[in-house]
Amino acid sequence: MAQKPSIPKGTRDFSPAEMVRRNYIFDSIKEVFQRYGYMPIETPAMENLDTLLGKYGDEGDKLLFKILNSGDFLRKADESLLARKDSNAIAGQISEKGLRYDLTVPFARFVVQHQNELSFPFKRYQIQPVWRADRPQKGRYREFFQCDVDVVGSDSLFNEVELIQIVDEVFQKLGIRVVIKLNNRKVLAGIAEIIGEASRLTDITVAIDKLEKIGLEKVNSELSEKGLSDEAIEKLQPILSLSGSNAEKLVKLGEILAESEVGTKGVDELNEVLTIIDALNVETGVELDLTLARGLNYYTGAIFEVKAIDVEIGSITGGGRYDDLTGIFGLKDVSGVGISFGADRIFDVMNQLELYPPEVTVTTQLMFVNFGPKEGAHCLKLAGDLRKSGLKVEVYPDSAKMKKQMTYANKKNIGFVALVGEEEINNGVVTIKNMETGEQKSVKPEEITSVIG
Amino acid sequence: MAQKPSIPKGTRDFSPAEMVRRNYIFDSIKEVFQRYGYMPIETPAMENLDTLLGKYGDEGDKLLFKILNSGDFLRKADESLLARKDSNAIAGQISEKGLRYDLTVPFARFVVQHQNELSFPFKRYQIQPVWRADRPQKGRYREFFQCDVDVVGSDSLFNEVELIQIVDEVFQKLGIRVVIKLNNRKVLAGIAEIIGEASRLTDITVAIDKLEKIGLEKVNSELSEKGLSDEAIEKLQPILSLSGSNAEKLVKLGEILAESEVGTKGVDELNEVLTIIDALNVETGVELDLTLARGLNYYTGAIFEVKAIDVEIGSITGGGRYDDLTGIFGLKDVSGVGISFGADRIFDVMNQLELYPPEVTVTTQLMFVNFGPKEGAHCLKLAGDLRKSGLKVEVYPDSAKMKKQMTYANKKNIGFVALVGEEEINNGVVTIKNMETGEQKSVKPEEITSVIG
Repeated sequence: MAQKPSIPKGTRDFSPAEMVRRNYIFDSIKEVFQRYGYMPIETPAMENLDTLLGKYGDEGDKLLFKILNSGDFLRKADESLLARKDSNAIAGQISEKGLRYDLTVPFARFVVQHQNELSFPFKRYQIQPVWRADRPQKGRYREFFQCDVDVVGSDSLFNEVELIQIVDEVFQKLGIRVVIKLNNRKVLAGIAEIIGEASRLTDITVAIDKLEKIGLEKVNSELSEKGLSDEAIEKLQPILSLSGSNAEKLVKLGEILAESEVGTKGVDELNEVLTIIDALNVETGVELDLTLARGLNYYTGAIFEVKAIDVEIGSITGGGRYDDLTGIFGLKDVSGVGISFGADRIFDVMNQLELYPPEVTVTTQLMFVNFGPKEGAHCLKLAGDLRKSGLKVEVYPDSAKMKKQMTYANKKNIGFVALVGEEEINNGVVTIKNMETGEQKSVKPEEITSVIG
Repeated sequence: MAQKPSIPKGTRDFSPAEMVRRNYIFDSIKEVFQRYGYMPIETPAMENLDTLLGKYGDEGDKLLFKILNSGDFLRKADESLLARKDSNAIAGQISEKGLRYDLTVPFARFVVQHQNELSFPFKRYQIQPVWRADRPQKGRYREFFQCDVDVVGSDSLFNEVELIQIVDEVFQKLGIRVVIKLNNRKVLAGIAEIIGEASRLTDITVAIDKLEKIGLEKVNSELSEKGLSDEAIEKLQPILSLSGSNAEKLVKLGEILAESEVGTKGVDELNEVLTIIDALNVETGVELDLTLARGLNYYTGAIFEVKAIDVEIGSITGGGRYDDLTGIFGLKDVSGVGISFGADRIFDVMNQLELYPPEVTVTTQLMFVNFGPKEGAHCLKLAGDLRKSGLKVEVYPDSAKMKKQMTYANKKNIGFVALVGEEEINNGVVTIKNMETGEQKSVKPEEITSVIG
């Protein structure tokens, strides 16, 4: 009892100061989503384990938080497995639900389950916590928020364009300078095909990725060590030395991949997206980057990644096109494309660069100091009138010492304080104190709004 | 695989149409909370089981969703308990976390854990889901939202007044006609004391509650059956026949309870709250109701309940004052008062009475029909400009058949559709179709805002 309570490791409480900042981020993102016709959905925290298992690889399965069945959960458990303490096998007998691990699988499940109620293309966003039994460490939590926006049921590259516009608008709005990196899975497949090493996609992209750090020579010897033939490495050289603008790179890439059907398709897709983007009002730089290889297991077309320019923090948003999201639940041929905003990292960047507009951190605009029951009751009335005009107003509930009340106002970052004693009541005025400058002013109640507005 | 996926019983997916309605409710409530200086917090979905256990009675303990420990959870489990399949005892050995059951206990834990960072009185609201392994039934879910607003660290009755104002404003804003029922635990204690049956509080309130339905005579015989002495029942008669306005009832109650210190305190508190409320601009009726006995285990002063007038649905909001919320976690003498808005019931009432303003259900304001890649790219530009002026605009991504595109717009409740073919592009105009009236109009791009605004 006397022991101070705590929360599970890897989880967090969010204080009011953190909440208003996080809400500012989420609200800014949502507003952009909505401006593009994306609609919110929410799914339950718990999913059936057969929905979740097998979707995230063996490692992912281990990181699922499983819910113990209610009631006499051991009743039907196998005695010999219990005796052997076979945790893995028993888990399946005493637990049938798990906490969601991401928003993608629940979204796929949602689309399949509700396919007859939805109109396609279905544009949705979803902002909810997810849970992973990962080892907690700095910046990695067991409960964290994902913020996903996807459109399913449309092949059009207009969707890719739109997502780039959304990224551009969100980060402009938040004031974070970013660069958008763009790649295409089909181009990577084309490269692997052309050099005759279709199965070596990952090795190749990893190598390209190291180019800047370790130089061409070391990259080549690494590829050789990994078993790539000399011929393949030779053929890879023009790709490794690709340079110039996006357009220049794409021209060269088009030549190199001319004999690969899939590669050519990828180049065409990149061309189309970049051409449309160029004609639009997108201010964020969009950079062709062949080293982008995220989600190689499921992305089939565009691959996106967004990096903050002013903070070293890795990717803060990413996504891509997947041609078979809902296939795992039996609905074939539904192509989709989406991105996920990394809420926690964006929060970190915003905090580091102090990018919040001042109004975000102002909470209550005006607090009435409480001088006693009679004065207080008078203030309740004044406060009510001010709230009607949309102001955020508090009356300090107790007639505590002045110092205590002022400390409260200060700690809560309240901009103005109203002092209404007997004299003010008799004269029909209110003394308004600006908490930042210390300036005091006696005004009529109807003038308050303009003083603190 | 081919089997249609589903979600755990008692849980729900929220579709876009439901989300915008629910968000309207939550946003309306939040806006009022903020106008009174209440600030948001959030706590993790998972709490340590020792935070949760023993706080909700034996029945509540059984309804907690427990999280299976990660990894080899059976390793340290007791062999003999496993052999006996003692689910209860084993649960404590293989699970140390549970899903939050309400927002009250996590809030108490939060206040104690962060007491040194908070400034008191601490005014917070919290809107998050909670989980209970209850038997699911109509209107009762295993995952549902609570929406709590509390102030802790202040004894002042101004807080009670403020919560009544908040209830008044929230339901006026939502358009739900309600009545606020008010009682005071101290008055109930006074009654029990005066009639010499201090331990019979619940029996007495249940009896008073039945008065209207079964009449005075049957109430008296029920009390007698329950073992109340004839003398006690006799003394109870003036209370059972209490009538008139709040003020009249309180005068009589004051006389009846004159000899009970706690009862008199309760009458004084009710008097003060109702007197202040009378002087304020509260439009909702506030009714003294001695049958209100919710939360008798923890409420120590005011008890609130809010009932919808136009729908039979029971209480849609309720709360009260508790003098020892944080005592369970070792922090004594922190008095608080709060109320909880029943989000699901309010949602039901709003749906039944169709109280949503039309703008809530409009999603995208304007959709550009897609006539082909060239026309579509032109529309992307126009759409971008319109979004800059704050409009919600979509470009249909695929150049699908007209009928398909129009069906999409209809299903999504999109108000206006823009038709931009070759002719429109050449003439620098856009044909705008009002989806409700069918009316079409050819306008310049810069006129669109005023047409659909």
